[in-house]
Amino acid sequence: MVTKPKRLVVIGGVAAGTKTAAKARREDPSMEITILTDEPYISYAGCGLPYYIGGLVRRRDQLLARTPEYFKKRENIDVLTRHRVTRIDAKAKQVTATNLETQETSTFSYDTLVLATGGQPLIPPLKGRELENIFTLRSPGDAIAIRELIEQQSPKEAVIVGAGLIGLEVAENFALRGLRVTIVELLDQAVPPLDKDMAELVEKHLKEKGVTLLTSEQVKGFESKDGKRVSSVVTSKRTLPADIVLLSVGIRPRTQLAAEAGIELGVNKAIRVNDKLETSIPGIYAVGDCAEVRHLVTGKPAWIPLGSTANKHGRVAGVNVAGGNERFEGVVGTLIVKVFDLTVAKTGLSEKEAHAEKLDYDVALVPTSDIAHYYPNHKRMVIKLLGEKGSGRLLGAQIVGEAGVDKRTDVVATALAFRATVEQLSKLDLAYAPPYASAMDAIIVAANVLRNKLEKKLEGVTPAQFRKEQEEDCVLLDVRNVPEYWSGIIPDAQCIPLPELPDRVNELDKSEAIVAYCDSGWRSAKAYRILKQAGFPCVRHLDGGIRMWHYGLEMQSERKRRRKKANNNDSSIQNK
Amino acid sequence: MVTKPKRLVVIGGVAAGTKTAAKARREDPSMEITILTDEPYISYAGCGLPYYIGGLVRRRDQLLARTPEYFKKRENIDVLTRHRVTRIDAKAKQVTATNLETQETSTFSYDTLVLATGGQPLIPPLKGRELENIFTLRSPGDAIAIRELIEQQSPKEAVIVGAGLIGLEVAENFALRGLRVTIVELLDQAVPPLDKDMAELVEKHLKEKGVTLLTSEQVKGFESKDGKRVSSVVTSKRTLPADIVLLSVGIRPRTQLAAEAGIELGVNKAIRVNDKLETSIPGIYAVGDCAEVRHLVTGKPAWIPLGSTANKHGRVAGVNVAGGNERFEGVVGTLIVKVFDLTVAKTGLSEKEAHAEKLDYDVALVPTSDIAHYYPNHKRMVIKLLGEKGSGRLLGAQIVGEAGVDKRTDVVATALAFRATVEQLSKLDLAYAPPYASAMDAIIVAANVLRNKLEKKLEGVTPAQFRKEQEEDCVLLDVRNVPEYWSGIIPDAQCIPLPELPDRVNELDKSEAIVAYCDSGWRSAKAYRILKQAGFPCVRHLDGGIRMWHYGLEMQSERKRRRKKANNNDSSIQNK
Repeated sequence: MVTKPKRLVVIGGVAAGTKTAAKARREDPSMEITILTDEPYISYAGCGLPYYIGGLVRRRDQLLARTPEYFKKRENIDVLTRHRVTRIDAKAKQVTATNLETQETSTFSYDTLVLATGGQPLIPPLKGRELENIFTLRSPGDAIAIRELIEQQSPKEAVIVGAGLIGLEVAENFALRGLRVTIVELLDQAVPPLDKDMAELVEKHLKEKGVTLLTSEQVKGFESKDGKRVSSVVTSKRTLPADIVLLSVGIRPRTQLAAEAGIELGVNKAIRVNDKLETSIPGIYAVGDCAEVRHLVTGKPAWIPLGSTANKHGRVAGVNVAGGNERFEGVVGTLIVKVFDLTVAKTGLSEKEAHAEKLDYDVALVPTSDIAHYYPNHKRMVIKLLGEKGSGRLLGAQIVGEAGVDKRTDVVATALAFRATVEQLSKLDLAYAPPYASAMDAIIVAANVLRNKLEKKLEGVTPAQFRKEQEEDCVLLDVRNVPEYWSGIIPDAQCIPLPELPDRVNELDKSEAIVAYCDSGWRSAKAYRILKQAGFPCVRHLDGGIRMWHYGLEMQSERKRRRKKANNNDSSIQNK
Repeated sequence: MVTKPKRLVVIGGVAAGTKTAAKARREDPSMEITILTDEPYISYAGCGLPYYIGGLVRRRDQLLARTPEYFKKRENIDVLTRHRVTRIDAKAKQVTATNLETQETSTFSYDTLVLATGGQPLIPPLKGRELENIFTLRSPGDAIAIRELIEQQSPKEAVIVGAGLIGLEVAENFALRGLRVTIVELLDQAVPPLDKDMAELVEKHLKEKGVTLLTSEQVKGFESKDGKRVSSVVTSKRTLPADIVLLSVGIRPRTQLAAEAGIELGVNKAIRVNDKLETSIPGIYAVGDCAEVRHLVTGKPAWIPLGSTANKHGRVAGVNVAGGNERFEGVVGTLIVKVFDLTVAKTGLSEKEAHAEKLDYDVALVPTSDIAHYYPNHKRMVIKLLGEKGSGRLLGAQIVGEAGVDKRTDVVATALAFRATVEQLSKLDLAYAPPYASAMDAIIVAANVLRNKLEKKLEGVTPAQFRKEQEEDCVLLDVRNVPEYWSGIIPDAQCIPLPELPDRVNELDKSEAIVAYCDSGWRSAKAYRILKQAGFPCVRHLDGGIRMWHYGLEMQSERKRRRKKANNNDSSIQNK
């Protein structure tokens, strides 16, 4: 053979693979580039698949960004679909692939190899798994089959196994199609990446939208009446009718090929890469869902498969395979999901992750609104913000609300990338006009609350923490206004409206631990200061107030009945 | 006198003044705090006033956050409204104030003084200025008077003098009230902080909404038919009928009092402060619209009065007057305004500011959309991004669009606060799901385009730059598709659709300078690479394409007529 231009082989043709190839072509017009994929579709919008099921995305071609013909004609890139790579010979610099149509095998030599093999849905080995109408959702073929089934068989009952992001997106789209939806989740909460207190906001919303969520419940298998199609899902607690089932219990990286080639794997068996996205074997790169990333908050390797990262990976690897020197530092763990009218997002570390990292952190739990409270159509939002004690470093945020959630999440994600402190977050020059924010933006308010806690100007306890320690004796003090008491009170709370508190502090016992609460935490923070100034040594406020209290309230009527013998201890309600 | 607690006097009772007082109270419960203001209202949402005029904010009490009674009862802060401070005696640590109701004069001693005197509207000394129905908009009283006039006199014709942020907000709210609106602007563009090419998007939208914008036109005076009320506005070019006039030509800091006390002033005669917000006289602080800030991109002092900064100032000064050590580093110059269906925002430096700073910068001008193109209801957005050559430092962004503008602005504002490079911006881990963003978020796409330019992988010229240099000989190459040509072509452009370009490069002359364009810049960037690879030495693409070309198109019919003699040079249109 005569001297040839550099040959690039890319295994995988969705986001990261095609992006790498296209970027490499731009960097080096002479390179020979081949994409091998065992799928029939390439360059599709995987994250749009749930919305194709619901019909929000109407035509399947809207999800297919590019065809193999496009790549050949416009980019001079060969795309071989339905070609499964069965072996990588890293010494010979060759891959072997089987044409799934003809079963023919061929080899492809490379100078540089890029693994973009993606992820694949976990399929638990459950009895009845092979029945019809049980799906996973990963490829356009899955979405097309699900939509066809809905349109042709008009199923009534849908069961979704797993309340993660994809499960929730499909739940909304199934509901849009008129299906009755039940989600079965093994863990004790929806949206497992979130802390339970934030997930509870999502769970409440699902209920409002008519979706049944069964947590702490295990799917045991599937049954069929006709021996063909699934007709019910058997769980650890019941049997659920099911005309269609989606398995969305997670994905894992497709890295067996890499492992067999001797390439080092890391977290979750994702392919270990350096910041040039090169694997343990020089000349072989890995990008997208099959590759590890560095979590910039923990500094540790992680596996966080996301379409947005896949695209960035593609650009970095595309430059590097063409001889460039581009780096991908890592991610901060940002995720977002639409759940009916709610937006649910997280970036950085959750409380459970911070705990696992043995970080000494403080939390602010701040119910607020997206824009100026006097501007029409403002929406509610809850921000949970974490910061490290001592250093004051921002650790992460979880945000749930009806509007403006994505904006605050992106601000925190940006701040995390620069290792911001909570103080720096609180002083950002964010865009302010009443249609877009409050004069103190919601995220700045949350940062200020967290600063107060980190600086010990305010001591708080989240409802979740409070529940854990409730064995201890503690006076709960409700400082809302009298009319608010009628919508319910945390059981056993004592009621003193905030304006009356300065004159009524002597109704409280300084020897007792006091936890003040209100609707959102605003007034209880004031109550905290009033009591501290009045010399109460052990006061905290309840972060997030009633809006984050998920453990039931006591109605006035019950309360009166129960408290008949203790009437005079709680004069503020009875006297008004 | 016996030893007394520390006395704090705050002059000014809107955002920064009341925030400072409230924060100081929280930091030091024993401090004696007095707010003196010559206004009748305190603690109001100044930025909400335009929306009270339009009726979006229905009740005036929605704009009034707190009353003097609230401050007295809840915060133990004395608020004296209608008290004008006439003198600061810095040596004696006393201020003298006149009660505007009684004309009585009293003195107030302080240990610490905070100046929160705000800004006041510039009122050009125009003939007829004293006529009725000519307003400025700064206080609730102004907004109430304007709304009453509209509701009682049903004016038809409104003239707004000045096309800045307040002028534009009021234009929208006047239009909501059914008024015919004309804006007269002395400069040659609306939204003066923006570059002209971005402002032109706003100007086009105003036209679509029925607002007449007259630029490069000077108001000379006002006339009245009845000798009482304004009836017309006389400009340098015409006489405009006017039943109501808003003067919104800008504001200036209210700092005469400070100057007379010997306090150092800075930019625009705003009060010079250090990062503790202390003035040149120890013990005297300045906050909010009357104070200077540091611009974190230029590193220089600036005067950028904003409610969001006022609130942050209040918190910083509140801590410091109580003996704390809080710092306010500065701002990045973020602003945002709603103009009917458009959001218009800027952060960091504009091109004209970068030019004035003598920075060597590159520009990306990127028409894009707010969310995934296949998800329903996605909206158009144009991002203009500036980065410094050499260092690659991000300098600023201007964003105009129908949705998602505030989010990208806040991301850039956050990145600017950390002196991010354009590369760092391009690699942020922003929240991605189809309802919120594209897999490559709009701001990441813009950052990548700018990186390509900074790294000289793409050479471009903005339409505005191109117009300036158009004397030079240059071939304009339109690489859109044939159907797109029918909606108009930049005059004299040669048309070769991108897919045909590789086979038709020989129709172009390598000795000529070529500027390729398309709809948005996406295809012209590809054309750039095709031509560079084909050996064309002098190629650029038109940043932003037709969507940013504000200088008129030529219709096919005109073109054919004009080009009858040169028919065969432009075969791509005629042959199809």
